[in-house]
Amino acid sequence: MITTFLPIPRTLMGPGPSDVHPRILTAMAKPTIGHLDPEFIRLMDEIKVMLQGVFQTQNALTIPLSAPGSAGMEASFVNLIEPGDKVIILQNGVFGGRMAENVRRFGGDLVLLETAWGRAIDPEQLRSALQAHPDTKIVAFVHAETSTGVRSDAKSLCELAHAAGCLTIVDCVTSLVGCEVDVDGWGADVVYSGTQKCLSCAPGLSPFTMSERAASLTQTRKTPVPSWFLDMNLVMGYWGAGSTRAYHHTAPVNALYGLHEALLMATEEGLSAAWARHARNHEALKAGLEAMGLRFFVPESERLAQLNLVEVPAGVDEALIRRALLGSYNLEIGAGLGPLAGKVWRIGLMGYASRPENVLLCVSALEAVLAQSNAPIHRGQAIDAVQSVYASA
Amino acid sequence: MITTFLPIPRTLMGPGPSDVHPRILTAMAKPTIGHLDPEFIRLMDEIKVMLQGVFQTQNALTIPLSAPGSAGMEASFVNLIEPGDKVIILQNGVFGGRMAENVRRFGGDLVLLETAWGRAIDPEQLRSALQAHPDTKIVAFVHAETSTGVRSDAKSLCELAHAAGCLTIVDCVTSLVGCEVDVDGWGADVVYSGTQKCLSCAPGLSPFTMSERAASLTQTRKTPVPSWFLDMNLVMGYWGAGSTRAYHHTAPVNALYGLHEALLMATEEGLSAAWARHARNHEALKAGLEAMGLRFFVPESERLAQLNLVEVPAGVDEALIRRALLGSYNLEIGAGLGPLAGKVWRIGLMGYASRPENVLLCVSALEAVLAQSNAPIHRGQAIDAVQSVYASA
Repeated sequence: MITTFLPIPRTLMGPGPSDVHPRILTAMAKPTIGHLDPEFIRLMDEIKVMLQGVFQTQNALTIPLSAPGSAGMEASFVNLIEPGDKVIILQNGVFGGRMAENVRRFGGDLVLLETAWGRAIDPEQLRSALQAHPDTKIVAFVHAETSTGVRSDAKSLCELAHAAGCLTIVDCVTSLVGCEVDVDGWGADVVYSGTQKCLSCAPGLSPFTMSERAASLTQTRKTPVPSWFLDMNLVMGYWGAGSTRAYHHTAPVNALYGLHEALLMATEEGLSAAWARHARNHEALKAGLEAMGLRFFVPESERLAQLNLVEVPAGVDEALIRRALLGSYNLEIGAGLGPLAGKVWRIGLMGYASRPENVLLCVSALEAVLAQSNAPIHRGQAIDAVQSVYASA
Repeated sequence: MITTFLPIPRTLMGPGPSDVHPRILTAMAKPTIGHLDPEFIRLMDEIKVMLQGVFQTQNALTIPLSAPGSAGMEASFVNLIEPGDKVIILQNGVFGGRMAENVRRFGGDLVLLETAWGRAIDPEQLRSALQAHPDTKIVAFVHAETSTGVRSDAKSLCELAHAAGCLTIVDCVTSLVGCEVDVDGWGADVVYSGTQKCLSCAPGLSPFTMSERAASLTQTRKTPVPSWFLDMNLVMGYWGAGSTRAYHHTAPVNALYGLHEALLMATEEGLSAAWARHARNHEALKAGLEAMGLRFFVPESERLAQLNLVEVPAGVDEALIRRALLGSYNLEIGAGLGPLAGKVWRIGLMGYASRPENVLLCVSALEAVLAQSNAPIHRGQAIDAVQSVYASA
């Protein structure tokens, strides 16, 4: 007998979705209006302005796509690639691999450069590749790899690509609002993100921005974009200036209410303050976990504050620990992916989930369930370590 | 200065989105949980079962896609078509034209058969086309054309296509729950819908079902599906049986809460009761509008109860009337599309919007604003005409 679904409230500290702020949940429950209503046009216009703010860009083509981050990735490649175009993918985790899969499916000539999982992309690797492949049209990489918790140097990579006359595609799904994303400062051409990470919003939309150069290429390509739903020439007709709006698809109205509120909250907090908050809570989590004797997987200078890869102690069944956290404390943390499965946990401190109470809960709960599993950890020091970070801030 | 968006509550009687039931709005505001949470798996399983119910199918591959109905259309074509495949599109409105555009973009060999807007597709036209094109692989059409308010005979069309060894793709965006959709009875291979019509749910998801025959073709095609996001081989790995679920994308958790509640409400009401409700409210609307002297655009036997095309009286500026309805009564009705722009209104009675109070509001408000515009209508009889339908039911 199926009845109304009543989710058990959880604390979401995995790789996403992360905790959604109550203001945003409330926003999504407001009465639906038509997607041609003048009030809805105002909503769209305000979302565009605030998205330009969090992306730090003046790009006119800055909108949320009506589908999750994976559709943002697909929109990036399907609009820019024509069959035979050479594309360099710099891969250092799952999502770079997915980029490569996009290139293959759209008939691109793929040059795949791999980096060890858990390490940032080395700009020198790109420099050599561009010399070896002077006919490259597009360079693409992930700024903040959700599978490894690593941040790469997007500015240096974009500058190298630009100097070689290439367009750039940058995945900022996990970075947007959690650490600096500077689309215009980097000179990135196409950047996409997701709503369910540091924006504290429900999953389902993909913030997306495209430079004039990339938009112009999309307008003048020789072959039609092999997607109707994600063809930016059509999508922009829908999201463009008021007088010329052409029906494309029915926008997800209530999800956009949520995104509007999330962007408003990010604007109220300010980008620098949000980045500082993510950094401070990361420091507290690190202090607590290291006091227990746990180790971080990624070299310190390459770590994301918002997504922490923590090594599973020898002899510990990591899935058992996650099940205990969820079962006893309604706390969700993430597992490792691919070659890191079984070896690490992924602990997210993203958006509204990046709060001192979450840090303290996570550290305390991990100490409790690891101790119960007889894991080799130091006891009784983690809470003070967390508190000392907040006390000194 | 941007502040929290507070939508003006409207009554949505256009072509969609239609009024969302308060139970569904409330469901969408429940706390987000992780998309790998065991509770979320239960949510997915219940949604699949209830979707099979409203589609009237046993297809194992019956799921909601994480994007609007246009993505459902794209998923249908991108998975089935390989370059060079011959596809017959039976077009009698905007959405058939969009199907043709999908065929072109995926390299299909398009045979486009056009029907006058406002008329149902003639099965004889398909019979002749199948004789002329015996190498056809796919036949596609729209069951309920949202641009014209016409229902075509899906069962006859599917049977003809099947007899010729073709697969069928049927657009049921506006029909699902509003009138009979019988996927297994028709023998349709791929059917998609939207959440924002007769399901009373917010826009953003596309209920989708695929026969075993179509799924098997997708698994054995020679070329990769030219979409990663919509590749059903991957999507099913995510929505499939519990033990083998593979991460694909992050599901739109809160939108799925809404769909779950919408499906539960449809299940509680029962399909036959929902169809009868849509038919009864259509009769009342028709009685009221005809008492005013307004005329329906579509021949009676081909009309959709849930979407009514009403002719604009001579000399009336249709946009002015719609603006007056919205401005004075917060009532949204739809404009005509394409060749019907300026000539008709589209009045939706879909899902939760299909209620006696909406019918009465719409009829009364139209009488008021048309009279104020000195339109040539009969006065003072519409309300009684509406009431007489409900009194006799």
